[in-house]
Order: sequence, then C-alpha cells, then structure tokens
Amino acid sequence: MADYDVIIIGAGPGGIAAAYGLLAKGAKVAIVEENLWGGTCPNRGCDPKKILYASVEAIENGQYLQHHGLTGELKVDWSALMDNKRQYTSKIPTGTKQGLDHANIATLSGHAQFLTDNQLQVGDQVVTATDYIIATGQRPAILPIEGKEYFQTSTDFLDLDELPKSVTFVGAGYVAFELATIANAAGSDVHIIHHNDWPLKEFDQSLVQELVAQMKARGIKFDFNVDLTSIQKDDDQYVLKDDQHFSLRTDAVFSTAGRIPNIDTMGLENVGVGTLKKGVQVNHRLRTDNAHIYALGDVIARVGNEPKLTPVASFEGRYLANLLTSESNRPIEYPLIPSVVYAAPKIARIGVSPTVGKGDPDDYVVKDLDLTNWFTYFRLGEPVAKARVVLDKQTNTIVGAQVLSSKADELINYLTTVINEHQTVDEVQAEIFAYPTVASDLPYLF
Amino acid sequence: MADYDVIIIGAGPGGIAAAYGLLAKGAKVAIVEENLWGGTCPNRGCDPKKILYASVEAIENGQYLQHHGLTGELKVDWSALMDNKRQYTSKIPTGTKQGLDHANIATLSGHAQFLTDNQLQVGDQVVTATDYIIATGQRPAILPIEGKEYFQTSTDFLDLDELPKSVTFVGAGYVAFELATIANAAGSDVHIIHHNDWPLKEFDQSLVQELVAQMKARGIKFDFNVDLTSIQKDDDQYVLKDDQHFSLRTDAVFSTAGRIPNIDTMGLENVGVGTLKKGVQVNHRLRTDNAHIYALGDVIARVGNEPKLTPVASFEGRYLANLLTSESNRPIEYPLIPSVVYAAPKIARIGVSPTVGKGDPDDYVVKDLDLTNWFTYFRLGEPVAKARVVLDKQTNTIVGAQVLSSKADELINYLTTVINEHQTVDEVQAEIFAYPTVASDLPYLF
Repeated sequence: MADYDVIIIGAGPGGIAAAYGLLAKGAKVAIVEENLWGGTCPNRGCDPKKILYASVEAIENGQYLQHHGLTGELKVDWSALMDNKRQYTSKIPTGTKQGLDHANIATLSGHAQFLTDNQLQVGDQVVTATDYIIATGQRPAILPIEGKEYFQTSTDFLDLDELPKSVTFVGAGYVAFELATIANAAGSDVHIIHHNDWPLKEFDQSLVQELVAQMKARGIKFDFNVDLTSIQKDDDQYVLKDDQHFSLRTDAVFSTAGRIPNIDTMGLENVGVGTLKKGVQVNHRLRTDNAHIYALGDVIARVGNEPKLTPVASFEGRYLANLLTSESNRPIEYPLIPSVVYAAPKIARIGVSPTVGKGDPDDYVVKDLDLTNWFTYFRLGEPVAKARVVLDKQTNTIVGAQVLSSKADELINYLTTVINEHQTVDEVQAEIFAYPTVASDLPYLF
Repeated sequence: MADYDVIIIGAGPGGIAAAYGLLAKGAKVAIVEENLWGGTCPNRGCDPKKILYASVEAIENGQYLQHHGLTGELKVDWSALMDNKRQYTSKIPTGTKQGLDHANIATLSGHAQFLTDNQLQVGDQVVTATDYIIATGQRPAILPIEGKEYFQTSTDFLDLDELPKSVTFVGAGYVAFELATIANAAGSDVHIIHHNDWPLKEFDQSLVQELVAQMKARGIKFDFNVDLTSIQKDDDQYVLKDDQHFSLRTDAVFSTAGRIPNIDTMGLENVGVGTLKKGVQVNHRLRTDNAHIYALGDVIARVGNEPKLTPVASFEGRYLANLLTSESNRPIEYPLIPSVVYAAPKIARIGVSPTVGKGDPDDYVVKDLDLTNWFTYFRLGEPVAKARVVLDKQTNTIVGAQVLSSKADELINYLTTVINEHQTVDEVQAEIFAYPTVASDLPYLF
C-alpha cells in the first residue's frame, strides 16, 4: 500500500490549494518543497511585487493630481520599502509549512525525483503515493549569451538591498514592465531592451504603445530591435552589446526574457511523463502520460490560452482535489481569465482580443473608448485612459476587453464577471453599484 | 390633446434617465429645470465631492505608507483643487441642456407648479402632458435654531473660494463625514457636532466607532450629545452654543442635518398628490395618488430600505421609461443597493445589517473579519481594515456586509453582484480574478 493517497511536488499556491482541497475530502496527503515553502508568488513573485508597487501607485496618484489640487512630492525610501517587503516575505516559508503541519499534511523537504517504479525519491527517503501532482512551477529564463553569468533575475530584483543608480531589463514582457516601473519610481535610470518592437506581445499593441509612451514620459528608455549578444563587466558596471552598434553601460542587468518550467531534474523520463518546451503535457483532466501523475499551474504546457498565473494554479488545485477524490470526473473548464500588468498605468486584458475582433467583423464589433475625460478618470487627473472592448454582434454581450488606466485592475475584475456570465447591458443595469465608480461605468462599455 | 406625452419636473440624473429612456421608446418628452441643469449630483453633490476627494485619497495613501517605503508629503492647494472642480462643474448645466436639446427633448426653464386641472405652469407658460414625473430631489435641511441664517450648506462648502481655518458641521450624517474628511485633509480645523452619540446611524456602529477613532487621529473633533440651540456672529467668526455649557468658536458652520424633499411649492395639493415628511407618496409602480403623476429619486418617500442615491434615481428613471411606454407593467423591483461614505477611510454597507444578523441567530451567521493583516490591506499600510459579513445559515450565501477600509467602495461593488446573484463560495471560485486583488479576496469573506 502506498504511503500517501497523493503526493504533491511543489508547495506554491497551486500545490497548496490541491493539498488543502484533498485533505478536506479525507485524502492522506504529502507535499514536497525543495526551496521556499509557499512558492514563487508570495516569496518572490506577485506578493512582494505588489508590496513594492503600492508605493508606485501612491506616487503615481500624487503626480497625476499635481496642479489639480495637490502639491508636494512622495519619494521612495528603498531601504524602508525593502524592510516592509521582508516583514511580509520573511514569515511566508515558516508560516506556510506550519499551516500544513498543523493541518496534518505531511511536509517533505528536499528535491523530488521520480524513480522508474513510480516511487518518489525526496532527498534521502523514498516515498510512494497512489497519485502524484507535479506543481513545480517555473523559474526565470537566462538568455544564453556571452557573459550570461552577470544576469540577475526578478528574484534578485525583489530583494535588492540597494537600488542601483541604473538598471537594465533584457526582454520586454510583463516582468520587465513591472520591475522597470518600480525601479523608475524609486529613482533609478531604467532601460528595457527587447529583440523586436513588439513588447507585451499578448496585449493589444495600440494600448501597449500608449503605455510605452507614458513610461517614456516618466524617463524609462526602451531599446527595441536590439538582439543582445554580450555582457562585459567593467569595474562595478556592465557593458551590454549587440553585434551591431548598440552599447549600453549599466549598474545591473536583469534577464526578463520569459520563464521556463521546472521539469528538467525530476526524473520525468523514468515515469513516462511527456514534456514540451513550455512544460508538462497534460490532457483535459490535467493528467500526464502516466495515469497516476497529474500536473497543475505554471509547469503545465497549456493547450488553451490560459495565462500562467497564480489564481489559475489555485483553480487547478481545487479541480484536482475534486477529481482525485472522485468528487467529479468532468474535464477542467476554465472561465475567461483576466491578466494585469502592474505598470504605471496598468494594462489589463481578458477574452477575445481587438485584433481578432477586427478580423471578424461578421461576428464582432470593436469599440475604442477614450476614457480620459470620463468622470472616473478625469477626477484622478490621469493623462490617458483607454479601453478597447470586443462585443458579440448577435448578442451584444462583451466577449473581450483590454484596458489602460490606473484602475485597469479593478475594471478588468468587474468585466471578468460581466463576460463570463454573458451579461447584457440590461442585466448589468439591473444591479445598482455605488456611484460614481468604476463599476457604475460598466453600462457605458457596451 | 396634451402638448407632451410626458413632462419630467427636475433635470437631475433620475429625470434625465427617464427622459432619454422615454425618448428612445418614441415618446414626446419635455423636462423642466428651475436651477442647474444636471441637478444635484454633478453640480453640487457626488461628482464635485469625489473630485475634491481624489486629493484626499492620494494624501491618505501616501500617509499610510510613510515608514513603509515612502517619504515626503502631499498637500492640498485649495484654490487649484477648486479650479479643477469648477473645470468640471462649470460645463455641466450647458452641456446637459445642450444634450437634451440636440436629442429633441424639450427643455423648459423655470419653476413648475401644478394647476388644479392637471396642467403645469412653468414660469409664464402653461403646458400639458398625458403623464408627469416629479423628480425634484432634495435640498439640505437647515436646523431651525437661533442664528440659523449663519448656516451654510454642502452646496456652499463644495464651492468655497477659500477654505476657512476652522469649520464646523452640525449633524453627523454622511455629508458631514465626507466634507469633514476633505476639510481636514486640506488643513482646516474641523468639528462635527451631533445631537446624540450615534453618527452615521444607518451603518454598523462598531465600524462607525473605528472610523470615528481614525478621523479623531487625523485631528477631527467630534462633539457628541450636543443639542445646538444658537449661532451668534462675533466679528468674522461664529459662536455655537447649546443650552448647557457647550460653546465653540468657528470660522464657518454648515448645517448637515439631513436633506428635505423639494415638494413644498409645486402645487401638489392642487392635483391630489399626497406627501409625507420624507417626500411624495408613491405605490410600487412609482405612481402618486394622482393616476397620471409619477415620482422618482430623492423626492420619493420610500417604503423600502432603498437609500436616496443617484443610481437609484437613474434606475427608477429607466423603470418609468418602460412603464409609461407600456413596455412593462410589473412593479419596480430593487436589487440590494450599496451605500458608501467617502471618509478616510471609507465605510460601505449593503443588505442585511450585522445587528439584524446577530438578532436572528437561527437564520444568520455574522462573521467579524479583521482585514488589517490581509495582504490587500497590509500592502497599503492601512492602520485598520475591517468587515462584518452576514451569511444566510441555510444557503451559506452572503446577504449583507459592512466594510471599513480605503477599498470599501471596490469591495462593496463586488459584493453587490455576489449578494444579488446569491452566489455560493463555489460559484465565486468558478471565476478567476486578477490576483492578488480585492476581488480575489472574495472567497475568504464566506
């Protein structure tokens, strides 16, 4: 008989959601972690980022209202900011593990590797389970160029004792946009280098261009169409070059060119679990090629458009808890999922993109809304606020939206319900929201 | 034949919603206004208040993060703030009237009075309609005490050229809380006088006490259990007294002791429209005692618990547009409606109160949540954030909530949907919201 009903490998939010979900249904559960209990999000991802970002938002809001009623200036005190972050993050690993221990979920510390007979080696011990869940997530990719040993990652940035006078991010995805926004607000001279001129590629490019313009106005420099080939150390600085004429001197350089799944040293080949470049292959029940091994969260090579985000991993954890305890055998069904980049301002998206909408005028109508003079944004003094909304032509329901504004996170969350519930404008107006708010604007998006 | 299908008396948000709604269904519509087109909300109510409040929020957020990552200070420049407000409000009357004119809604300027034969006198002219809608709203009540001529009102406060060094509000309802918060943030010495010790009486008193404590910590003084009896002018100041030992010297004094319906000079007695102290009596189709006269918005004496708020008036305007064009004959059905006080922090409520919940333990469970250390609030450095949630014991759905935090407006809007749609925690978790946000906290409120 197996030691456990389920062993979960990786104690991030997804693995932990699965663990508690399984426990609640009476399963005997163990969870393995080789690094920080709690995983990426609370230790070196969304949570610390949003703690640092709180100061960015406060500064941004104060700046918008200069000459509209406010004077004075807020500044980042990096060391106090980092203290505040550490006050939160320092408690996460112990708190997470204690929570699991007290709940009677077995916590196994060490690196996990599958053996050929479906057993799992964790450090020195070998353990067995009826079913396994791989929830090992991803780690920052390091661009394989000359001098790549000088790259730091988002993990390093989020724990910098001092903010360098100049910082450079290589790869213009959401991590670069978010960390660049923080570094800029805190007073660093910031560059973002990108190999083409299509940053934040999952987002609507007309809104991304607006965002880039606003970030440039704040002093962030973008170097597009630069294929970096080398990093050289020169005293305390680094010199970044391509094989043309690009050259940039910086105090710190971060690889923000995507994230790669943690699948390489787990012995997946021993148990017949197939992988792709983007992660573990799973079917619509999150089952791998091995009938007793499942996977969830960022480590999955997703077939759909689901973004690799913490709440998606938790959603999958809850799904697997039901599936593995025979509570339900239905395939996983994802709602449409919002995605937010916490820059200044924020950009957010959900559902059908304006590009797809424009490309299919028989089915969709794309509304371009300049929100700048809408009351909600006028009162905040925002320089530019915009939205692109995609409507289904037949039903006149919203099926997608992309938003650029300091309230984009709030608006996209309201739209998440409006879109997933297929609400018409009449159904939205059947609710009465506090007025005037982001929510009370919803009818005007139709 | 009547001049119009419908004449609406009062061009505030409710009347205007009715006008455009009726127009869209082909009715011939006129709308009467004797003061500012657009009514209270955009000219001297919610909108100007929230423009001034934008600066309060920015200051508040900056203060919360002092020693948590921010230094420096934002200050209100009253004259720039007022300029910004006037940039918005100055365009409202003309813009509103032009919009109506261009839409071919007849705009009649002047005071409206019903004549005995169901005709309406507006200034010099007499006009007729098949149906009428009374949408004249309310005005600030002036406490009938000695020296009441020295009282100013919220309308005056929202248009002050200079902020007095000290200001006093008499009556501790939401108007006083909101204006006091603005005046305090802008540097005035603020007093709130109240005749008992039960301010904001529609809100949960344990949360109100927390709010009062936070406002006191910001320097706002509360004088509870004071029955003011006189105001005397003394040079440029005013001396406020009760008939005991209370005496307060202030630069400006505002009557914030509620609002009274505008029903007294309309000739309602000529057309048999009954009224109560709280306004025009209507039935469940918003019809008055006169079969051809309806009423909506703040001027109504409501039988239910619906708060007198702008979005409720607009909701009723849309309802009457359907009813009067025979689109529907059903009685009006209100959803549960949220209510927010924009103090620092905000307090918000919806649905069944904790007091009612505690009083009926067979049906309800009341959850007291200290949100202060929840990530959403920790990252903002909020000193105290709390919620009281009322759950239906049988269905485990949320039926009421009261929230105190700088995000209370956002949270209460999400809860408006959760409550009105009777969502269970599983249904809430079937959506994936951006994480970590106020919306992604929702499952933890159950």
